[in-house]
Amino acid sequence: MFNNQIVIDGLQYSNWNRDYFLMLKASGIHAVHVTLVYHEVARATLTRFAEWEQRFEQNSDLIMPVYRALDIQKAKELGKVGILFGAQNCSSIEDEIGLVSVMRKQGLAIMQLSYNNQSLLATGCYEKHDTGITRFGEQVIKEMNRVGMIIDMSHSAERSTLEAIDLSKRPICISHANPSFAYDALRNKSDTVIKALAANEGLFGFSLYPLHLPNGSHCSLEDFCKMVAKTADMVSVEHLGIGSDLCLNQSQSVLEWMRNGRWSKKMDYGEGSANKSGWPDSLPWFAGEDGMRNIYQGLLKVGFSDYEAGQVIGGNWYNFLQNSLEPMPELNSSYAKVSQRTKEPA
Amino acid sequence: MFNNQIVIDGLQYSNWNRDYFLMLKASGIHAVHVTLVYHEVARATLTRFAEWEQRFEQNSDLIMPVYRALDIQKAKELGKVGILFGAQNCSSIEDEIGLVSVMRKQGLAIMQLSYNNQSLLATGCYEKHDTGITRFGEQVIKEMNRVGMIIDMSHSAERSTLEAIDLSKRPICISHANPSFAYDALRNKSDTVIKALAANEGLFGFSLYPLHLPNGSHCSLEDFCKMVAKTADMVSVEHLGIGSDLCLNQSQSVLEWMRNGRWSKKMDYGEGSANKSGWPDSLPWFAGEDGMRNIYQGLLKVGFSDYEAGQVIGGNWYNFLQNSLEPMPELNSSYAKVSQRTKEPA
Repeated sequence: MFNNQIVIDGLQYSNWNRDYFLMLKASGIHAVHVTLVYHEVARATLTRFAEWEQRFEQNSDLIMPVYRALDIQKAKELGKVGILFGAQNCSSIEDEIGLVSVMRKQGLAIMQLSYNNQSLLATGCYEKHDTGITRFGEQVIKEMNRVGMIIDMSHSAERSTLEAIDLSKRPICISHANPSFAYDALRNKSDTVIKALAANEGLFGFSLYPLHLPNGSHCSLEDFCKMVAKTADMVSVEHLGIGSDLCLNQSQSVLEWMRNGRWSKKMDYGEGSANKSGWPDSLPWFAGEDGMRNIYQGLLKVGFSDYEAGQVIGGNWYNFLQNSLEPMPELNSSYAKVSQRTKEPA
Repeated sequence: MFNNQIVIDGLQYSNWNRDYFLMLKASGIHAVHVTLVYHEVARATLTRFAEWEQRFEQNSDLIMPVYRALDIQKAKELGKVGILFGAQNCSSIEDEIGLVSVMRKQGLAIMQLSYNNQSLLATGCYEKHDTGITRFGEQVIKEMNRVGMIIDMSHSAERSTLEAIDLSKRPICISHANPSFAYDALRNKSDTVIKALAANEGLFGFSLYPLHLPNGSHCSLEDFCKMVAKTADMVSVEHLGIGSDLCLNQSQSVLEWMRNGRWSKKMDYGEGSANKSGWPDSLPWFAGEDGMRNIYQGLLKVGFSDYEAGQVIGGNWYNFLQNSLEPMPELNSSYAKVSQRTKEPA
């Protein structure tokens, strides 16, 4: 039964406003991993947090912040949508190891080690050469492990991803991507990566972004669910979730910011091209409030059990977050206090 | 005759004050490439420029800024020491291509593409793997070429250095390092690199930093000059200069800032080690005001002609700067104006 499940979308970057929060609530989603920043440095990241604080203030009947997994249970009980923050790049910590814990205290729960390009930590999926995890990167992984910030390699290159899985003492995620076997794109992930991720108790979130899918915006629900089933055959179902990468109601300038940041003088088209430079059309069976329900039904149709389908649309993300967002036990008291405080949100 | 030469030190990071400027003037040096920043981001770089503005104000009888090569001639005529600014890392431009021209207008003449670690542009010499020039790096090289900012690969890794030489449409420099044949350290440069640099009209500055030299602080003047002679046999003398890397009167905390920036929780010893964590002792024949004169005499003794020795202690740097610091002809008027203004310094 869909209504009994915990439902979690492991990545969205829509244009956040009250109408959208109403839609999210109606869709049955209990928590969303929200992209807080793409290329923002530390100071600008604080502004993004401040903007969200205002959204929480103005929509306290609909949304609430998620600091740890239990907050998602709380959101479900209260009939609200939990907001879990993530950074698609590591620009928020700039070149400063100490900013990992600073950002975690603000509520940054997930951070990608690179976004398409080379970062100070790891290589992005569009670089020609992949250096793996850098010297600074090794330190950051250790620190993220310590404070309970989740490593996400969705936009990273293969070698960097395998090294991150190997170096991290805690499971990591690929919050939003698809297997290369379904659609061969630089952004999608090889069997090797998906197997290594799962072998280390990581989580793989399937993307609904048309440019990650076979047949793009025409990908059928059935084909999507068959891709999930084939992956479940490869690594077993408990490592699989949804990270829709849904970007609704965003302007072209937002797309260009994601792709170009401040680094390129000429237009970079990311997963698009000069001929297809705009937002792709959304999947008709996912963009509205029935999206997660549709996937759930679709998974049943391709042979998943009720329990398994429920795990894919949220249960697995929940278990993963439960193991990942707590600080390591040896962490100092200042840290434990913040974690404690969020135990009982107002 | 030493006194007729143009004398240029291609890298220093001493503790700048009036006493030191008096010493520099007495040493016969007409221009110094001064390290402005190691790990500072854009905003902090502006503060470093502002601090130098005050030094220029308070020591206008001794020092003057160098924006283009002609300013060095002017400094020589006026009996002053020209100050040419460089960044040892690319942190000043953060992730923003537009900051290349902004920093050039402020007076940043030289920028390293990486400092020991991986940067957004290139790999540093202490990383395990060398990815070469990144996507952002390619754009920055083009932009540095355009505005007349010199690429310096002193602390970069080999593949990145070879690719930078190849990608740059203008000659680049390794302002301070030594050949690996003289002393095999990660920071020093292979014959392959030195030959590629010279083949593209680049400049190689020999370092007097003891940790780059055979026998460290006990390296003799004769051995130093023989190293220069052997390199001149390999690539011909017009590509060789001095980049002393002299860091006088700096505290241990400055050394730790250089090596650790903000990236490491544990101490990183750079070219040193846990047993040799402090500043190395300076070379007795270089640290005082006779340093450049000593090298000049030493070069004559190992067989350089008067003309050649003069080129090594400054003439080659001068020629290189003359070709490198002007913006490309197609550059827009706003840029040309700044360049014009500095033609006639007050």
